[in-house]
Amino acid sequence: MISRALARFASRLRRADIPVAARREAVRSIFNVVGTALAGAGDDGVRRIATTVLPFSGPATSTLIGRAERADCLTAAFLNALAANVFDFDDTHPGTIIHPSAPVAPALFALAGQQRMGGAALIDAFVLGVEVECRLGNAISPGHYERGWHITATCGVFGAAAACGMILGLDEEQMLWALGHASAQSSGLVETLGTMAKSVGVGHAGRGGLLAALLAAQGVRGPEAPIEGERGFFRVMGIPVDTARVVDGLGESWEITRNTYKPYPCGIVLNPVVDACLALREEHAPAAQDIACVTVHGHPLLRQRADRPQPDSGRQAQVSAQHAVAVVLLDGRAGISEFSDGRVRAPEVRALAAKVAVAEATGVSVDGALVEIRFASGAVLAHRVEQARGSAARPMTDADLETKFRALAETVWANRDPAPLVDALWSLDAADDAADVIRRAAAER
Amino acid sequence: MISRALARFASRLRRADIPVAARREAVRSIFNVVGTALAGAGDDGVRRIATTVLPFSGPATSTLIGRAERADCLTAAFLNALAANVFDFDDTHPGTIIHPSAPVAPALFALAGQQRMGGAALIDAFVLGVEVECRLGNAISPGHYERGWHITATCGVFGAAAACGMILGLDEEQMLWALGHASAQSSGLVETLGTMAKSVGVGHAGRGGLLAALLAAQGVRGPEAPIEGERGFFRVMGIPVDTARVVDGLGESWEITRNTYKPYPCGIVLNPVVDACLALREEHAPAAQDIACVTVHGHPLLRQRADRPQPDSGRQAQVSAQHAVAVVLLDGRAGISEFSDGRVRAPEVRALAAKVAVAEATGVSVDGALVEIRFASGAVLAHRVEQARGSAARPMTDADLETKFRALAETVWANRDPAPLVDALWSLDAADDAADVIRRAAAER
Repeated sequence: MISRALARFASRLRRADIPVAARREAVRSIFNVVGTALAGAGDDGVRRIATTVLPFSGPATSTLIGRAERADCLTAAFLNALAANVFDFDDTHPGTIIHPSAPVAPALFALAGQQRMGGAALIDAFVLGVEVECRLGNAISPGHYERGWHITATCGVFGAAAACGMILGLDEEQMLWALGHASAQSSGLVETLGTMAKSVGVGHAGRGGLLAALLAAQGVRGPEAPIEGERGFFRVMGIPVDTARVVDGLGESWEITRNTYKPYPCGIVLNPVVDACLALREEHAPAAQDIACVTVHGHPLLRQRADRPQPDSGRQAQVSAQHAVAVVLLDGRAGISEFSDGRVRAPEVRALAAKVAVAEATGVSVDGALVEIRFASGAVLAHRVEQARGSAARPMTDADLETKFRALAETVWANRDPAPLVDALWSLDAADDAADVIRRAAAER
Repeated sequence: MISRALARFASRLRRADIPVAARREAVRSIFNVVGTALAGAGDDGVRRIATTVLPFSGPATSTLIGRAERADCLTAAFLNALAANVFDFDDTHPGTIIHPSAPVAPALFALAGQQRMGGAALIDAFVLGVEVECRLGNAISPGHYERGWHITATCGVFGAAAACGMILGLDEEQMLWALGHASAQSSGLVETLGTMAKSVGVGHAGRGGLLAALLAAQGVRGPEAPIEGERGFFRVMGIPVDTARVVDGLGESWEITRNTYKPYPCGIVLNPVVDACLALREEHAPAAQDIACVTVHGHPLLRQRADRPQPDSGRQAQVSAQHAVAVVLLDGRAGISEFSDGRVRAPEVRALAAKVAVAEATGVSVDGALVEIRFASGAVLAHRVEQARGSAARPMTDADLETKFRALAETVWANRDPAPLVDALWSLDAADDAADVIRRAAAER
């Protein structure tokens, strides 16, 4: 009875049931994901997708983050969700590798354009959505992702459905139907990663979850056991499954409190490498022409995922230790523009990247790395990082998140101060109307 | 290189490459599915879904079969696809149990409202779409459906993508991207069958396929190998797989020529039972009150799928031999209204159904059945059917399809002659504009 237990929990959850720490982390997650969506709106692929779907949009009720047009709520959920995740710079739930905010927060903000909701109600619903998607993810991890499911999309559609269902006031039966309609739309393949087809899947998860909740609110019925049924989500898409993880401690522990945020727009394994290079650059400002070679010593996963000597696009550079080392030592930054197509192809970056090698080191955790620079003179500089910024042990502070947000905003708003949006997001809990908050993320007309 | 081989085939297919028999069967399939969509539009669940999504529709370019409103092409693809399949009265590709027309034809007619296409071009694209979805289905059958995938939806999204891609003139690379965007949206669980969540999945397949093609036309890129890649459709969703079946004889044999059409709106295993009861009723007109008991002798699958003594909804009655026997002996018909909630609950139907038993018989094929009526007087009547109407051995004739179509139209058009629509559909190949043809399936304003 997992589906019904989740539906009951989701339909009965009240603000008083949610710990302050969970709601507070929700605000940080929402803050972070609006920033990644804002920068994502400037991506060429995202623009092409918007160009494709906006001619079919209905009544322009809902804000498109980073754009001047508005769209109907389903279209807005689609576009905002995929923009939020396009750079993989959004948040990460460590146990599942779900990017939990991208499908859920955009669906809620989209719905806010259609149906008035206070900021506090949006936060409650967001906590619920993250809880549902991450608990489903917990039950099927790591087998589900390893098989090739893009778990952010496959589980995200359930999270968006539950979150929107809470705003729509679905009762237990309707919430169960919403989960059923989500199950009928759950999709997303790892094969699509590195292409815009990944984004289609993530956008679809946000839109499909909102649609599922709207359908249930209209009395459109679904199956009794979409999650655990004989031909339901778990048995078809989830083997192996630890189903107890969906309901154990439901309402007592909160998945949102485990959420982490990326300091840099690249693969998580590269975080300590970037940290080390930023420190080396700040302390020693080594000149590229004096460098003979650079060796990155790290956990075996670092080499497996990110030993990529010649990336030829920004997307590939996000998982290239060679590029990360070169660009950070040269530019002293690791933001969106340092992982752009243009920067990847710059001769000076390529020249320095060619001097970088990745070695497996024993005794280095996946959150750590040692970067060693050998100069033509024979001199050596090294910096070791034990725990990368953004890891559970060294979480991003509010100030860190704000610095990241401002850098993201800068990529699309060269001459606009993001302060009104920043302030509105931090004050979301007190906002009378969540639509007013997200409206500040629209482009000026 | 299966994905690329399919993309190449799809992007290069020309009318002259398609045999006349395939295009002719396509017209029959399209004729049949417009009829099922027309009746489907009258279903309460379909109406609720329409009520949910129509407020978010964009420019009203595309016909909604059986409705007076129009919708944007994505919304029209969604609603028409799910209406086409809601009663499971549409067509069946025997090797895969795919209902091939429901995702493909509605997506094409929806696109016809957006972009002018001749009837002949629609037929070409339809043949291609069916080819793609059924070949993918062949490669993963029967394991895929048995595991719990609703194959009409999971494969249908690829068929709709290829078909719409042909109309949009996608080149090989773009067609590959369209298949990739389809892969990101491929979904549908058998657990949802018997509920409207199934329809959400089928509607999504039609809409998602059209969206995939539109995105590719705008240059939105996808992966190189969405079908056969390491984490692509086949390995994630398809094991066990006979991949050769996708490309063997591609362009030589045509899946559409294997298509079959249901004479009755119930499970295929019940077709010979209905045939036998219709014959008994016609020849002998047995009075219900004189009947002591009825025994249906059939293939083991008949008992496994349809031995359901007390159905309590039209949906359940579609897989109840007891109901089918009772209602056909009483009413002398087996149409939509004989499998309605109201007829299922009628006392005289329930009373006769209670006298019906299902027995497994050796030597009866799954296309055959023997129905035996024992009277209170001691007299016995029996009728044996070897091959049911609608099976590959006894295909529905054009006249049969037309009778079926008129009966379907009658369920929603009490006072309207469907002849103009019937004629326009049979003449589709000569139509200048496919949108003009489908417009005749709209409700009068």
